[in-house]
Amino acid sequence: MDEKKFLKGLISALGLEDNDVVYIDGWALKIDGSAASTSKLPFQTWRDFGWRNVAAAYSDIRVKYVEPLYMLVSVTAPRLEEAAEIIEGAREAATRLSLRYVGGDLNQGGDVVVDVAIIGRATYRIGRTPKPGDILVTIPKFGYTSLAYRYWRDDDPVVAKGVEMLKRPEPLWPLPPPECVTASMDSSDGLADVLWTMANGVDIIVESLPVPEEVLSFAKERGLDIGELVFNGGEEFLPVFAIRRDCDVKEPYVTFAKVAEGRGVVWWDGRELKWRGWAYFRTS
Amino acid sequence: MDEKKFLKGLISALGLEDNDVVYIDGWALKIDGSAASTSKLPFQTWRDFGWRNVAAAYSDIRVKYVEPLYMLVSVTAPRLEEAAEIIEGAREAATRLSLRYVGGDLNQGGDVVVDVAIIGRATYRIGRTPKPGDILVTIPKFGYTSLAYRYWRDDDPVVAKGVEMLKRPEPLWPLPPPECVTASMDSSDGLADVLWTMANGVDIIVESLPVPEEVLSFAKERGLDIGELVFNGGEEFLPVFAIRRDCDVKEPYVTFAKVAEGRGVVWWDGRELKWRGWAYFRTS
Repeated sequence: MDEKKFLKGLISALGLEDNDVVYIDGWALKIDGSAASTSKLPFQTWRDFGWRNVAAAYSDIRVKYVEPLYMLVSVTAPRLEEAAEIIEGAREAATRLSLRYVGGDLNQGGDVVVDVAIIGRATYRIGRTPKPGDILVTIPKFGYTSLAYRYWRDDDPVVAKGVEMLKRPEPLWPLPPPECVTASMDSSDGLADVLWTMANGVDIIVESLPVPEEVLSFAKERGLDIGELVFNGGEEFLPVFAIRRDCDVKEPYVTFAKVAEGRGVVWWDGRELKWRGWAYFRTS
Repeated sequence: MDEKKFLKGLISALGLEDNDVVYIDGWALKIDGSAASTSKLPFQTWRDFGWRNVAAAYSDIRVKYVEPLYMLVSVTAPRLEEAAEIIEGAREAATRLSLRYVGGDLNQGGDVVVDVAIIGRATYRIGRTPKPGDILVTIPKFGYTSLAYRYWRDDDPVVAKGVEMLKRPEPLWPLPPPECVTASMDSSDGLADVLWTMANGVDIIVESLPVPEEVLSFAKERGLDIGELVFNGGEEFLPVFAIRRDCDVKEPYVTFAKVAEGRGVVWWDGRELKWRGWAYFRTS
């Protein structure tokens, strides 16, 4: 049992739609958080950690074509000093992302936990399951964060890009025309997690890796498994859109997979994709 | 510096109104949470803790005459077992309080932290500062929780009421006519905290203690300071309303204090009230 299976059961027990955001009367809401003990990276400051939690919630809601407008942040921390830094980072992110920081809560606790609620205007409702015949598009910047997790101590310009993506993510990507989009998710727990979630009653066949040349070269030089870097990273906060086949794919997007009838399998290189992305509470 | 002074500075830096809820376009929002390491009581189960956090947010929003409708809960916990119990308790509270549990988040962390967001319809806007000449009314059930904090191990019916209030708070009190109310707060950090917060540019003179007979007797028998029990408790989730002097006070409400022109002092028994209620991160 991991968190995703548990949540699936809970969502069905509550009679809810299995989606990333909640829709109420023309509004969309998202609550998203993390704890420092499991999620803060060694090279992130507390300000970065505050920023990152805002960006994560923002990315989730933006990929659904919701216009993010308001933000509330609840911070738990052992000491006021850390809380103050986190709130400052959240405020910086709010400014960058044009969110109004309207309120929050502050509590003392044994771990640092940041929960961010974002509220926006919802014009469309976009789910997570594409249709057979659709193509999947994304921005080909996967791999950077995987490199940063491992090599952040190295002085290397490719790794530095990943470190910057993880410290100050900016999910401000342009959006494809909404009438083209049949499903969407952002990559927070890795591209493999996105693909396995989208492959709900359909198969997904990956045809190329959405990875930049410099990441490919880095991997080749160090003898790294490029599939693992691309599929099993996380916190890229890059969008994956399923779009109708007759829609144009415009820069910065690239086509990297297609959707086919099937029984819910993700295929890559002629085999079932072995990575699953990241989940909490994993027992096996 | 404690959390309240810190938040006051932050709120003014963000240019926000110093209020308990956030208003957006006819809606009101509240995010409210706590960590088990600082806030879970020894006699609370994880289900109780889930319930308590929902009730705390609900109480805050109900005292503002907002109709609470929807709830999202973000749970952080070291293990899935605790998270599952908390979510179950939150679900029970949602049922009891007629809230729709519409979503949430689940994360792994080193402390158990529950953040609850409640969204409701706002018809009125009620602040926290009363006007000179107003009277303060409440439900005279203060003291029970103070006794429960100290004597929860004892087999005593008066203490048992406090334990039940802390395990399964039900802030379902009736509301005075809204046109009578000039300010309101609920007591989560103690009655002293409510009174000192309300005494913003006005004085508050406490004239009687909103305490039941059986709590008075208990205090007398054991030689306890009744003022401390009443003012310095916490988590009563009882409302305090400032109402116009010409309004009727109906059961279960009683008048216990009056508001006068002044410089922000709470008076009781001819002296400045010495208790201040509860705050996190207190350094002095």
